[in-house]
Amino acid sequence: MFNIPTVTNQFGHLIIDKINQKTKPLGALGQLEQCAIQLVTLFSQKVASEDAFKTFAPAINKPTLLVFAGDHGVAAQGVSIAPSDVTSQMVANFVSGGAAINVFCQQLGWQLEVIDCGILHPVTAPSVHNCRLGSITKPLNTDMAMNTAQVLQGFNNAKQLVQQLSHSGCNTIAFGEMGIGNTTSAAAIMAAMLNLPAQQCVGKGTGVSDDIVTRKITVVEQALVLHQLHLADPISLLAALGGFEIVHITGAMLAAAEQGIAVVVDGFICSAAAMAAININPAVKDYLIFAHCSNEQGHRLMLNALDVKPLLQLDLRLGEGTGAALSLPLLQAALGFYNQMASFADAGVEQVVS
Amino acid sequence: MFNIPTVTNQFGHLIIDKINQKTKPLGALGQLEQCAIQLVTLFSQKVASEDAFKTFAPAINKPTLLVFAGDHGVAAQGVSIAPSDVTSQMVANFVSGGAAINVFCQQLGWQLEVIDCGILHPVTAPSVHNCRLGSITKPLNTDMAMNTAQVLQGFNNAKQLVQQLSHSGCNTIAFGEMGIGNTTSAAAIMAAMLNLPAQQCVGKGTGVSDDIVTRKITVVEQALVLHQLHLADPISLLAALGGFEIVHITGAMLAAAEQGIAVVVDGFICSAAAMAAININPAVKDYLIFAHCSNEQGHRLMLNALDVKPLLQLDLRLGEGTGAALSLPLLQAALGFYNQMASFADAGVEQVVS
Repeated sequence: MFNIPTVTNQFGHLIIDKINQKTKPLGALGQLEQCAIQLVTLFSQKVASEDAFKTFAPAINKPTLLVFAGDHGVAAQGVSIAPSDVTSQMVANFVSGGAAINVFCQQLGWQLEVIDCGILHPVTAPSVHNCRLGSITKPLNTDMAMNTAQVLQGFNNAKQLVQQLSHSGCNTIAFGEMGIGNTTSAAAIMAAMLNLPAQQCVGKGTGVSDDIVTRKITVVEQALVLHQLHLADPISLLAALGGFEIVHITGAMLAAAEQGIAVVVDGFICSAAAMAAININPAVKDYLIFAHCSNEQGHRLMLNALDVKPLLQLDLRLGEGTGAALSLPLLQAALGFYNQMASFADAGVEQVVS
Repeated sequence: MFNIPTVTNQFGHLIIDKINQKTKPLGALGQLEQCAIQLVTLFSQKVASEDAFKTFAPAINKPTLLVFAGDHGVAAQGVSIAPSDVTSQMVANFVSGGAAINVFCQQLGWQLEVIDCGILHPVTAPSVHNCRLGSITKPLNTDMAMNTAQVLQGFNNAKQLVQQLSHSGCNTIAFGEMGIGNTTSAAAIMAAMLNLPAQQCVGKGTGVSDDIVTRKITVVEQALVLHQLHLADPISLLAALGGFEIVHITGAMLAAAEQGIAVVVDGFICSAAAMAAININPAVKDYLIFAHCSNEQGHRLMLNALDVKPLLQLDLRLGEGTGAALSLPLLQAALGFYNQMASFADAGVEQVVS
C-alpha cells in the first residue's frame, strides 16, 4: 500500500565534509549536527549530481502540523480522568484557536490542520477535515477496537491528505493527537509490538491516579490476552488495539515517507503509531525525526527500543503535537548552520584537529 | 557594588491559578510552566496592583545576546587543541557574521553584541565593544590570572553595558563567551567554589584528547594549591582563576539582575560565572534561566549543585552562547501559552481535576 523510497546516502561524504569545515570544533553542535545530516540527506534525495548538490540549499518548506482526533471506547473503562466528551470539546478549542498547539503553531510558523478521525460529537467547522471512521472505537479489552477495513480506510484518508500537502510544496509534517483514552491504546500497541509486560508500557497519561494506572494495566493485560491471535500482523494489531486517530497517524507517516517528506514525531501516542508504521514498512524510519521525550513512563523505553534520541525533554505530557511543534526552531537551526555558517577557509580561522 | 532587588512573589497565586485554568491537564506543559512562572514573576515585579496584573501581558523585549571574548595565558600550558590566536580569529568571524551564534541570533531574533574583554589581537571593527582589561590573562597555575582591580574594572564595564541595554528597553539578556583555554579557568572556579577535586570539574572542552584532559587536571590542581589563600573571597578567587570574559559575564549577570532583567545562562563557562555571581550576591539567582546542559562533564554536576534544570540538552559543546540562543523560542512559548491559551471557561472545555 505504501511504496517508500529507500533513503540513499549519495551525498553523505559531502554533507559531513561541509559540516566539519564549519568554524567550530568537530561535532560541537551535538544533536543539531545529526539533525542536519538527516534533513539534508532527506531533502537532497532528488538532487541529480554532486555539482547540483554543491549549490543546493536545503530548507523546510510549508511545515504543517496535523492533529488527528479520535475517541476511544476504552475511556469508559475508568482509564482516564476525563470523559470522552472532552475530545470533542478540545477539537472545538483547536478550531477557535485556544489550545496550546494553536499558540505554538502560530508562534513558530506551522500550518495547523485538524482532522476528525471519529470523535463522539462532530465539530461543525469548515476547517476540520472529515475523516471519520465512526464516532468512537469499541473498548479494546472486550472487542476489536475497529475492523481491518476501518484501518485501511484510515490509511487511505491519510494518504490523500498527505498527497495534497506534498503537492502544495510541504516537505515537513509533524503529527499530534487528541483522544481521551489514547494512552491506553498506545500502551497496548507498545506492549504487543515490543512484547513487554503491560506494567512497563502503562503510565500516568495526562495525570491519572495510581488506582487508575492499576486499572489501565489490567485493561491492557485483558486486551493482550483477548487479541493474542491478532497481534502478529500490524494491520490486525491496529484494528484490535488502535484508535481512529492512531491508524490515521500511522498511515500518514507512511504516506509522508512515500512523498519524501520529513516526519516530526511528537510524544507517546505518535511514537506508538511510528512503531506501527515501521512494522508495516521499515523504510519509513529514515524519514522520522523524534521531537520530544515525554513524561509518559513507557515513552523512554519505546524510544530506546527504536534506538532514537529525541531533540527535547521538557516533561510535556499534553499531546496535541506540542513537543513536535516546539522542535521546529531546532530543525531550522540545524539547516541554518549548515547553509549559512562560514567555513574555516572563508573566515580565516585556523582549523585545529585533535 | 550591585544592589539587586529581591524577587517578590506578590502575584504568585494569580500566576499559578491562571496557568491551572488553561485548557490542559494540570502541569502538562512541564518545564514550560516553570519557565512561565519564573518569567512572569520577574517581569511583573513593578506591576502595582492585582488589578493591574490582571491586564498585564508579559513579553520578552529586545532580547540581546552578549558574547564576551578574552584570552587565557593558561592556553599556552597545553590545555587546549587550539592556540590563543583562534580567539581573535573567531571574534573576527562574529563581526563578519559567519559563526554559529550569528546564524542562531539572526534566525531567532536576538540582537548580538560582541565584547572584547582582552584578546590577543584586537579586531578593529566599530561593532566590537572595547572593554579590554589586557591582551591575555596570566597562566592561572603560575600566577594570579589578573589583579582584583581588573576584576572590578570588568564589573564596571559590564554594568555600563547592561545599563545601556536596560535603558533601551531590553528585558532579557543571554550570555555567551569565546576564549581559548576558558574551560580550564571555569573548571578551576568550579572546583574552588564547590570544593571538589579537579578531576570532577575538568572535561574535554571543545574536544581535547585524554592526555590533554590529564594535563588540564594537573594545571587546575596546581592553581588550587597556589591560590588556596585567595579562594574564600569571590573577587580574589576570580582574580586568581578567572578570565577577562568570565569576570565581565559575572558582572553583567549581577548588573542585569540589578535592572530586573532576565538572564539566560549558556553552558559550562557561563554557569561558572553564574556561580561566582551567586557567591557575590545570592539575590541574582532568581533572575537566572539555565538554557542548556552541555556535554562538558562538570556541567551537569554544577547544575545539580545549583539545583537547576536547564531547558535543553543537545550535547552542544561550542560556547558562544549557542545553547542560550536556542532557548529563546521556548521562553517565548512559555509566555505565549500564558498570555494566549484559552481557559476552561473561555473554551467550554470540562475541567477535570484528578
